[in-house]
Amino acid sequence: MNILIFGIGALGTVYACFLKKKGHRVIGLSKKPVQEAVRENGVQVTGIWGEHHAVLDEVVTGVDKISDAKLDLVIVTVKSYDTEKAAAEIAGILSTDTYVVLAQNGYGNFEAAAKHIPENRLILGRVIFGAETIGLGMSKVTVIADDVIFGSPKNLIDHCKVEQFVAVCNEAGIPTRFSKQVMKYVWGKIIYNSALNSLGAILEVNYGKLAEVEHSRKLMESVIGEIFTVLKRIGQEMLWPNSEAYIKDFYEKLVPPTAMHHPSMLQDIQRGKRTEIDALNGAVVEMGKKYGVSTPVNDIIVSLVKAKEKMSLLRK
Amino acid sequence: MNILIFGIGALGTVYACFLKKKGHRVIGLSKKPVQEAVRENGVQVTGIWGEHHAVLDEVVTGVDKISDAKLDLVIVTVKSYDTEKAAAEIAGILSTDTYVVLAQNGYGNFEAAAKHIPENRLILGRVIFGAETIGLGMSKVTVIADDVIFGSPKNLIDHCKVEQFVAVCNEAGIPTRFSKQVMKYVWGKIIYNSALNSLGAILEVNYGKLAEVEHSRKLMESVIGEIFTVLKRIGQEMLWPNSEAYIKDFYEKLVPPTAMHHPSMLQDIQRGKRTEIDALNGAVVEMGKKYGVSTPVNDIIVSLVKAKEKMSLLRK
Repeated sequence: MNILIFGIGALGTVYACFLKKKGHRVIGLSKKPVQEAVRENGVQVTGIWGEHHAVLDEVVTGVDKISDAKLDLVIVTVKSYDTEKAAAEIAGILSTDTYVVLAQNGYGNFEAAAKHIPENRLILGRVIFGAETIGLGMSKVTVIADDVIFGSPKNLIDHCKVEQFVAVCNEAGIPTRFSKQVMKYVWGKIIYNSALNSLGAILEVNYGKLAEVEHSRKLMESVIGEIFTVLKRIGQEMLWPNSEAYIKDFYEKLVPPTAMHHPSMLQDIQRGKRTEIDALNGAVVEMGKKYGVSTPVNDIIVSLVKAKEKMSLLRK
Repeated sequence: MNILIFGIGALGTVYACFLKKKGHRVIGLSKKPVQEAVRENGVQVTGIWGEHHAVLDEVVTGVDKISDAKLDLVIVTVKSYDTEKAAAEIAGILSTDTYVVLAQNGYGNFEAAAKHIPENRLILGRVIFGAETIGLGMSKVTVIADDVIFGSPKNLIDHCKVEQFVAVCNEAGIPTRFSKQVMKYVWGKIIYNSALNSLGAILEVNYGKLAEVEHSRKLMESVIGEIFTVLKRIGQEMLWPNSEAYIKDFYEKLVPPTAMHHPSMLQDIQRGKRTEIDALNGAVVEMGKKYGVSTPVNDIIVSLVKAKEKMSLLRK
């Protein structure tokens, strides 16, 4: 297959490396410093899935630089606030056989991409293994909580077509499965991240510590409760019947395997980068405003993360 | 005068040193390590009021150890959560001529002390100069925003009696004045601290930075707004007609001289000590609950500070 990995960050590096090793033609797209490093040294993956290295067929800084842009699959791994820009670029090289997988964090990626790419070409991915950047084009896989889920949010793509891409990923060594209810899985992850990633970034602790202390537990439960109320209001079904059921799973099943995980938003803040807060608690607050649901805890968390973001930039 | 300084921390060191240098008989009371250091080396003050040193007449760990406990004045400088315990101790040595000044932070000190000491012996102080502990019995005065205010909250003490203690402090070099409305001044400081000290402890920045960034400004204004609503509900008058007037003064007059000040609650957390959050935003939340006023921002701030407190202890 001809595959473009749009964004060679922590996640894109893993996809590029594993798909290339399986023999596909893999093109990487990234900003200048990463592009140069990956062109020179290839991509490298370490961590729980072993040591891997691959040299990509091409590494470019824009889709117009691709020598032969007849693509079967584009996997988008840019930050959520860059999704729309990436989608606009991809739209320019979309052939009748190209499908696009959105493998990012947070709410709004599908909606942003659909402004430029037909919905019957967009596959939404729920990625729930953890990868950290340890260098340019170098990633460490730290944890896997469940398979990646691929699906068409409104089931506008033939099931067999999606299964084809699911098989490609599985064969390459990235556990993946199809679901007709991908949006439910994506929301599950948004809730998980809105509770742990944001509060962990504010308090500068790992996920386990947040679940250990009474006052941070109370705050996380409020975050989760508010999101369930918003989702109920908009009619979005969930994998859990109510927030109590989610909270039980959260402490018993979701947090323990990721207890040592450090919040990616804290890493973003410490590096003076923008966080994905707008696609997490921020998206919940916006939905709450639109549908008349009060979300004070998520609102204050957004303000605190944004204040930290800004203060970190002022220090630079 | 015979004066007992109950607590030789940052503030108590300043009072002990200046009053002793003026020639009063000054007894210090503190916990063991401080008591030993002060008995050995005296008290020392540095910073904007110059370099000072004094040897106290006595330094004890409990009121029962004082050789001659006929006191004119007791100045209480312990943390707000220790006020009631201190008051119970002081009650045991209260003679008919002893007055007690509460020179602490937050709401609830007068109420706690009044459980053991008659209200017509209790003078409430609003201290708004900044002192930091730089060693045992060693303080640095960093900033002064206004005179100390002394007063009897319900004006149960003869004006002239309070003025006598005001004069003692002024002559010793600590700018002080009397007010019939001391509670209004104390609330002004509680609001100031609830906005700056708590958020500064959460975000780990100085006061100036909080006033510089849009999102922390928004949070501080919410904190202030909620407190004004609670105070209006309980009928507590203020020095400002409404929160808008306070917020204007806050940015224009109160924050600028203290822009470089680092939150004392952050210092407490970093030292693994308990903060005074219960006497600041915590007191507001409790009043809000009691009188049916919603205070979500103060509530979340309390949870975050307490989570940080606990996490810091877990790290020790």
